[in-house]
Amino acid sequence: MKIVIGGAVREMRAVWYEEGAVHMLDQKLLPHKVQVVKMTTYHQVAEAIRDMTVRGAPAIGVAAAYGMLLAANNREDLEAATEELKGTRPTAFDLFFAVDHMNAKIAAGIDPIRAADDYADTIVERCRRIGEHGEHLIKDGDRIMTHCNAGALATVDWGTALAPIREAWRRGKEIFVYVSETRPRLQGMKLTAFELLNEGIPHAIIPDGASGHFMREGVDLIIVGADRIAANGDFANKIGTYEKAVLAKELGVPFYTAAPLSTFDLSIERGEDIPIEYRGEEEVTMIDGVRIAPIGSKALNPGFDVTPSKYLSGIITENGVLDPKDIRENLKGARL
Amino acid sequence: MKIVIGGAVREMRAVWYEEGAVHMLDQKLLPHKVQVVKMTTYHQVAEAIRDMTVRGAPAIGVAAAYGMLLAANNREDLEAATEELKGTRPTAFDLFFAVDHMNAKIAAGIDPIRAADDYADTIVERCRRIGEHGEHLIKDGDRIMTHCNAGALATVDWGTALAPIREAWRRGKEIFVYVSETRPRLQGMKLTAFELLNEGIPHAIIPDGASGHFMREGVDLIIVGADRIAANGDFANKIGTYEKAVLAKELGVPFYTAAPLSTFDLSIERGEDIPIEYRGEEEVTMIDGVRIAPIGSKALNPGFDVTPSKYLSGIITENGVLDPKDIRENLKGARL
Repeated sequence: MKIVIGGAVREMRAVWYEEGAVHMLDQKLLPHKVQVVKMTTYHQVAEAIRDMTVRGAPAIGVAAAYGMLLAANNREDLEAATEELKGTRPTAFDLFFAVDHMNAKIAAGIDPIRAADDYADTIVERCRRIGEHGEHLIKDGDRIMTHCNAGALATVDWGTALAPIREAWRRGKEIFVYVSETRPRLQGMKLTAFELLNEGIPHAIIPDGASGHFMREGVDLIIVGADRIAANGDFANKIGTYEKAVLAKELGVPFYTAAPLSTFDLSIERGEDIPIEYRGEEEVTMIDGVRIAPIGSKALNPGFDVTPSKYLSGIITENGVLDPKDIRENLKGARL
Repeated sequence: MKIVIGGAVREMRAVWYEEGAVHMLDQKLLPHKVQVVKMTTYHQVAEAIRDMTVRGAPAIGVAAAYGMLLAANNREDLEAATEELKGTRPTAFDLFFAVDHMNAKIAAGIDPIRAADDYADTIVERCRRIGEHGEHLIKDGDRIMTHCNAGALATVDWGTALAPIREAWRRGKEIFVYVSETRPRLQGMKLTAFELLNEGIPHAIIPDGASGHFMREGVDLIIVGADRIAANGDFANKIGTYEKAVLAKELGVPFYTAAPLSTFDLSIERGEDIPIEYRGEEEVTMIDGVRIAPIGSKALNPGFDVTPSKYLSGIITENGVLDPKDIRENLKGARL
C-alpha cells in the first residue's frame, strides 16, 4: 500500500522482515501518526499482537509467522514460542495456522526466512488477485460503498474489499468511495479512510446510519469483507454489514463480499450456525476513555452480523467472482 | 417525565415557570449531571436556546414563550425581545410560532403567565394523547426499537415516539427498548437512554449499525419521531430512520412515526421536496473535541433522511393513528 511520510510516497506492507528485524506499522497510532516499530524477539511480536499494534486476522498470521522466524533466528525454544504466540489472541484462525505452518517448514529444514516471507507473499498474492478479479466489476465513474476495514492494514497488503478499489484506481478509473465509519470501534473512519487518503482515492466518511440515504442518492456498487463464509454463502462480517445488504437489495445496488478462499468454512452449512461474538459494552458506552452513556444504561455490542447469501451479487475471491449458490461446486479441488 | 435526583423520583418538565423565573433542565450536561438553571430575563432564555441548554423544536418553542413572559414581567420592549428570541436558532418553526403567539395574546390583554403556561400545556397535552393512542399498539412483552431522541426533553414532557412507550410502561406492560445511539450527535445514547433510565424502563443502547441484527433477532415494533411530514406521508427524521424503515419492511416489523398534527406540512407534496440540512463534517470527524478521522479525509453529515410513506404502518398523532394514505382526508378540519 502507499503511505505518505513527510510528503514522500512509500510503498510498504503492514508487516515485513528486513535486516534481522520484524517491522510493523503501529496501527494503534493510526490515522494520526505513521510509526514503524522494529522487533528482534518473538516476545516483542507476541506483545504487538496482544496490544493490537497489528490487527486483522491475515496480518496477525503473518506477524506470528515472522515471530517464529525470530525464535528460530535467536535459537530459542520453538515450543515455548509456539505457546506464547498462539496465546496472544483467542479467535484469529490465521494465527494458529501460521505458527503451525512455520513449525512444519522449520522441521522440514526449510530456511525460516524463506518460509515466513513465502507465507506473507501468499497472503498478499491472494489479495492482489482478488483486486484483479473485483476490478472488472467497477466502472469508470462508479461510486462505491464499503464498511469497516478490509484493507491492506488487515491483510499486510492490498486488502480484500479494498483490493478491487485500489486496482480500479491504479488503472485510472475515476471512483468515489463512501466509507461508513463503523461504530463502535470506528475502523472505517480510522483505517479505511487512512488507506484511501494515502492512495489518493477520493472518499468521504459517513455515519453508519447514513448508508441508506447515500444509497438512495446513488451508489453503484458495495464491496465489504467477510470474517467467515458458510457453505450456503451466508457470511459473517462486521456489525452493520447486514443492514447495507438489505438496503442494497431494496434499491437494486449490486452487493459483493471479497475474501480469500481460506475464509470459507464448509463445516458450517448456514449462517445461523456461525457464532456471533458479543464484545464489551464499554466499546459502545465510552469513547476515548470518556463515558458517554448514562451510568446505569446497558449497551449491547455484537461484533458481527450474518448476511444471508440471497443478498449477495457474488463473492470476489482469488479464483474469480463466485456465485454464492455454487460454493461447493466452485471450491472442488481448490486449495483452501 | 420522571427524573431521579439524589435517590428521589421527581416528576418534572424540561422547561417550566415558577416563582417569577423560567426553569430549565440543562440538557448540555445530560446524561451525567441533572442541573436546573433559573432565568429571570429574556436575554438569559435566548442564550439558553442558543447554547442548547434547551433543544428540540417544541421545547424551544415553550422556552421562547416563557422568554416573552419574562420580557412582559420586566416591562421590557416586546419588539426587541421578539427579535432577540427569534434570532437564536434559524430553523425551529415552533420558535417563531411561539413568539408570535405570545405577542398576540399579550396584545389581546391576556395574562402572559397564563398564555405561556397554556402554550406549554397544549404541547404537553398533545404528546400525552399521542401516548394514549400509541399505547394500544404495544403488547405486553414487546421489544420496541426507537431512534434519536423524540422524548420529553425535546417536547417539555412525554415526548412523541417515547410517549406511547412511557404510557405502556405506566400501565404495567413489560417492555424492552432498543435505543440506537444515533451518530453523529448520539442523542439516542445520551438523551433517550437517560429518559428511559429515569422512568425505570428496561432498555439497551445499540450501535446504529446493529439495528438490523436485532430486528432479525426479534423486534416487535419500531416507533420514531418526525421532523416534517409531507402530504403523501413521506417524512423527514433524524439520519438513520430510513434504514430502519427498509429493514422493518424486509423483516415484517411494524414501523410507526409519532408526531403532533403541527408536524404535517401539507404545502409539501412528497418527501423529495423536503430540504435536507447538511451539518458540519466535524460532528462526524471529531468526538468530544478530539479529531478521530485522518487529517485530509472529508465527511458527509446529512442531519436527516426521508422515509417514503410506503414503509409506514401508521402515524401516531394526538387525534389517533393515521393511515399515511389518507392524510388530507384525516386532517380535514383538524386544528394544526
